[in-house]
Amino acid sequence: MSKIRSLVTGGAGFIGSHVVKHCLAMGHEVVVLDDLSGGFEDHIPEGAVFVQGSVYDETLVANLFEEYRFTYVYHLAAYAAEGLSHFIRRFNYNNNLVGSINLINESIKHKVKCFVFTSSIAVYGAGQLPMREDMVPMPEDPYGVSKYAVEMDLKAAHEMFGLNYVVFRPHNVYGENQNIGDKYRNVIGIFMNQIMQGQQLTIFGDGEQTRAFSYIDDVAIPIANSINLPAAYNQVFNIGADKPYTVNELANVVGECFGVTPDIKYLQARNEVMHAYSDHTKAHSVFGEGSGIGLLEGIRRMAAWAQVVGARKSKEFENIEIYEKLPQGWEKKPEGATSTTA
Amino acid sequence: MSKIRSLVTGGAGFIGSHVVKHCLAMGHEVVVLDDLSGGFEDHIPEGAVFVQGSVYDETLVANLFEEYRFTYVYHLAAYAAEGLSHFIRRFNYNNNLVGSINLINESIKHKVKCFVFTSSIAVYGAGQLPMREDMVPMPEDPYGVSKYAVEMDLKAAHEMFGLNYVVFRPHNVYGENQNIGDKYRNVIGIFMNQIMQGQQLTIFGDGEQTRAFSYIDDVAIPIANSINLPAAYNQVFNIGADKPYTVNELANVVGECFGVTPDIKYLQARNEVMHAYSDHTKAHSVFGEGSGIGLLEGIRRMAAWAQVVGARKSKEFENIEIYEKLPQGWEKKPEGATSTTA
Repeated sequence: MSKIRSLVTGGAGFIGSHVVKHCLAMGHEVVVLDDLSGGFEDHIPEGAVFVQGSVYDETLVANLFEEYRFTYVYHLAAYAAEGLSHFIRRFNYNNNLVGSINLINESIKHKVKCFVFTSSIAVYGAGQLPMREDMVPMPEDPYGVSKYAVEMDLKAAHEMFGLNYVVFRPHNVYGENQNIGDKYRNVIGIFMNQIMQGQQLTIFGDGEQTRAFSYIDDVAIPIANSINLPAAYNQVFNIGADKPYTVNELANVVGECFGVTPDIKYLQARNEVMHAYSDHTKAHSVFGEGSGIGLLEGIRRMAAWAQVVGARKSKEFENIEIYEKLPQGWEKKPEGATSTTA
Repeated sequence: MSKIRSLVTGGAGFIGSHVVKHCLAMGHEVVVLDDLSGGFEDHIPEGAVFVQGSVYDETLVANLFEEYRFTYVYHLAAYAAEGLSHFIRRFNYNNNLVGSINLINESIKHKVKCFVFTSSIAVYGAGQLPMREDMVPMPEDPYGVSKYAVEMDLKAAHEMFGLNYVVFRPHNVYGENQNIGDKYRNVIGIFMNQIMQGQQLTIFGDGEQTRAFSYIDDVAIPIANSINLPAAYNQVFNIGADKPYTVNELANVVGECFGVTPDIKYLQARNEVMHAYSDHTKAHSVFGEGSGIGLLEGIRRMAAWAQVVGARKSKEFENIEIYEKLPQGWEKKPEGATSTTA
């Protein structure tokens, strides 16, 4: 039997680097495609081939498939700033949708056996809770729209060309290797970065919004393993933790793990759903019950890692397209930028 | 009161050129943006300013909005080859989604009063009939996915930025100014072109698939007028004819209008919905009852026009991305094209 070859896009990123680790452990040859916009080369596990570039680069993607003839594709590359996506619409669709389409095209042409895609709970919008896979997606921001469009395109590609897929909708994942220097996303990383820089913790709104923060092992292991489970093929799965916490509770847990009492600065509420948690019955039936690692233990592990890595400086996103209504704290303009609404 | 200025994208195309005509009649200053990929400069009504270019050209779009400060945007530009969209995924999303996003971005920035968008019944997929606006869209091909993504993005833009929109889902529209030289779409134009070239009429499958073919006036007039009707704002409307006909019946009507007995060549069925017709109760309540022009009268008018214009040579689409399963008759490859599935 020939060796299994897997492409992991976004493999230098947070979830991606864990998926690479698990794929290597399963004996796959792994090629990582990552543009390092959110990831770090030193997060890529040893043994993987690294190619720096974007899924949006059609020629690069075609050449990679031609050279490596991948058995499986794990597509995790995305610019996952849901709240920012209103203000970077074009970038969002190019990167998250058209980039995905480049991979789907090549996966069809090269008869990839399964295309594993990380979507998002952003596809649900502010619907009924808990979110279940049989609910009708109603995404409310361009990020969620782009993810849902890829899900629908994969279904069409399966029906027309027989391309198998597995779609995961993880949510609020945290853990080692997370980019804690991204000021637009990942509240846990933002809190840790703020604590290590001696800053106040910033919360949009009153902090009573809830999320079921999910430890990385409960997400990356099922993603990596899904290609081995025929019951997972051509299905959509919520994946992650069951128990929701408020952002205020989260701030206390993070503070506890760093031995500080959190000093919170409340900012104007932004346009986001107040509550979000998913039903995982379907995932449990196919992937089992998960690691059992709770919020305090997960945050403790991540904090230990973050204290070694140290605080990182936030990068500003450089190509804001619309400045109107950009949330407080995100409003710094790159030099030379113009706006008709300023 | 200052003059109303409208941008009509795709204004050299079929539906677009009619919308331009009605906008001029309402006293608008009209700018047409069209890349002439499917339209013709001589279809643009006199009095409109013509700019040749694509909605995908972000800089051109930004400059146009800066120069003209449009009051309204009618976005009709699209590459509307639903069946072909499986094979030109990347092109489809760039042209139909990212191009739309360029316009939405600028419409937000320049505070356009209403953004009128022509979507498609392709968003419904093969659901229950008749299609109604309160049904959950389930598009089954990349064209339908791209149209539905734009609808969702418009809703998000309305909720975040207050951009008003009107979405139309027309279907199987026919009439004067239709591109009868496009071999991938518009069965009525294809039939007329085939008859005028003395060819057999080609039908995918057994011809018993049904569509409610809609005369142009029943679509273009409500589209043009929608900006005057506050009840239409931020709503989605099916628009077109109520009565479905089989493609075989259609072939007979077209033959009758040209005084010939149709000679039909049945091709292998392609991946398409068998039946499609819409409920128009919602549109009638806002836009009135329509022209009352039935299929025979509508085809007669279009045939009279087509006989003056004459037959046109089909253009081949030059950038097929996937050749596998391309329907019979579409399979000719541009020179130098390669395929891994050939």
